[in-house]
Amino acid sequence: MLIGLRPTERMHANSCFFTTNDSSQTVALIAPGLIGGSLALALKKRTDCKVRVWARDPVALQQVEGVLCPSKASLKFEEIIPGTKMIVFCTPVNAMGRLARQIYPLLDKDAVVTDVGSVKAAVMGELVPIFNDRFVGGHPMAGSERHGLESAREDLFENAVCILTPLNSPHPCLQMVRDLWTAVGARTFEMTPEAHDAAVSLISHLPHAAAAALVNVVCSQNVALQKLSGGGYRDTTRIAQGAPELWVNIFLENREPILKALSEYRNQLEALSHFLRLADSNALRSFFEEAKAFRSLV
Amino acid sequence: MLIGLRPTERMHANSCFFTTNDSSQTVALIAPGLIGGSLALALKKRTDCKVRVWARDPVALQQVEGVLCPSKASLKFEEIIPGTKMIVFCTPVNAMGRLARQIYPLLDKDAVVTDVGSVKAAVMGELVPIFNDRFVGGHPMAGSERHGLESAREDLFENAVCILTPLNSPHPCLQMVRDLWTAVGARTFEMTPEAHDAAVSLISHLPHAAAAALVNVVCSQNVALQKLSGGGYRDTTRIAQGAPELWVNIFLENREPILKALSEYRNQLEALSHFLRLADSNALRSFFEEAKAFRSLV
Repeated sequence: MLIGLRPTERMHANSCFFTTNDSSQTVALIAPGLIGGSLALALKKRTDCKVRVWARDPVALQQVEGVLCPSKASLKFEEIIPGTKMIVFCTPVNAMGRLARQIYPLLDKDAVVTDVGSVKAAVMGELVPIFNDRFVGGHPMAGSERHGLESAREDLFENAVCILTPLNSPHPCLQMVRDLWTAVGARTFEMTPEAHDAAVSLISHLPHAAAAALVNVVCSQNVALQKLSGGGYRDTTRIAQGAPELWVNIFLENREPILKALSEYRNQLEALSHFLRLADSNALRSFFEEAKAFRSLV
Repeated sequence: MLIGLRPTERMHANSCFFTTNDSSQTVALIAPGLIGGSLALALKKRTDCKVRVWARDPVALQQVEGVLCPSKASLKFEEIIPGTKMIVFCTPVNAMGRLARQIYPLLDKDAVVTDVGSVKAAVMGELVPIFNDRFVGGHPMAGSERHGLESAREDLFENAVCILTPLNSPHPCLQMVRDLWTAVGARTFEMTPEAHDAAVSLISHLPHAAAAALVNVVCSQNVALQKLSGGGYRDTTRIAQGAPELWVNIFLENREPILKALSEYRNQLEALSHFLRLADSNALRSFFEEAKAFRSLV
């Protein structure tokens, strides 16, 4: 097993901070978009906790108030952070460090901080020095080619996986973050930040590269070819519609694991081309049979 | 425009052989699976024509009778071909030549022959010498990772595209094949066999290669990684579950165009890796923006 992963035991499902009827419990979401907005909607539907939201500008604030109806929304951390027991960073990864330094002085001593960023080694490297073991990295494996608060859905995390990357956090901190995600219907797994980044380079970032490159190959020949396509091309390339800026950041932040994944992918494609050049039907059959057998295990 | 394509004019939509109430019109399907079975169900639902089926063995015959309830089903071409105005080959491409030589002597003079094979230059090369200009190649761009008659669906062709590759066929022959597909809800396009094969190498065969290679890269690291995946990986790799034997044949039959498509795909991935190695955010952004803009035109 080259990349270790360990599912969280489910025995603690009822020890949940978020399923108590204690409506004094408060979660603060920092600049929610698709993921944070979906988390807010799910928490409001499935728990009694209060949801506060920090928004980055008046336009975002107005949208937050319209879409999420939080118990409190503000442009000022002073109005959001004190009294909040859990802070969730929902911003792009490259904005987290700057905001974390503003939030830290306002933080309750027993507050726990987590995030929803797509890469974890970089986030842990920035936020652990600020929040120490109060920070538990998180990455819900859910999303869509759509983005922004207007695409938020209260069922986005039902049956999804959320990967957590605790770094020597005390058990109660980790448990609170586990409970956050189980409360909205996700299953949690725990990994090191490095194992997470290698895993998502393969199961999330490489598929985006594969889809975008496929669209670019087809359309560099003739964009009208897409009109002939069936469900296979459409499904395989759906995620190529993701927000370019978001993906540029993810690729730069997870550069080495993605380069490795791309290199392995090109090797697989070169092997397939080699079998085809030789018209080696046995090797082609093994290639496709292996893929079919693996894929059926999802 | 490197690969030419030309949509069929829609003005003849009402001149349709298949939308008359003349139930003496008969279509024969040769060994239907997913595609042929779906065609039979759609014809039965949407037209008054009679559907006859030739099956390759008693087990297939029994399944045909149970799933399709055709007006006639038989293991003998003598009982299916005479009196039939349209014959549709639904077998794997590599079986068509042999069966065509058995069918030819039984064919009505005014019958039209077509097929649903995924490659066209090879099929035209085999069947045009037998049926001359009575043969019009066809390829409905619909399907699924499932296969076999048990997966047939009467709505499979609704809003799908069917590519036709007529080779100097007289207008009435071509029109009958156009009418067949418009009767079941598809739009027809006409191309040369070579343009078809280049087009499907890009929009159908390359996506299968991309999906299968992606599964094999991920699972060669750790098959359990798939358990962490979200909708992106799942959609991108869905078609890797297609029948291996079918895909081996398609790859061998369309070898040169697929090798070219694979080479262009590896070039695109190498370009992406190069931009990432240089951390060239502008080039990465252009790559993803181009893919998003193209894909949104589907």
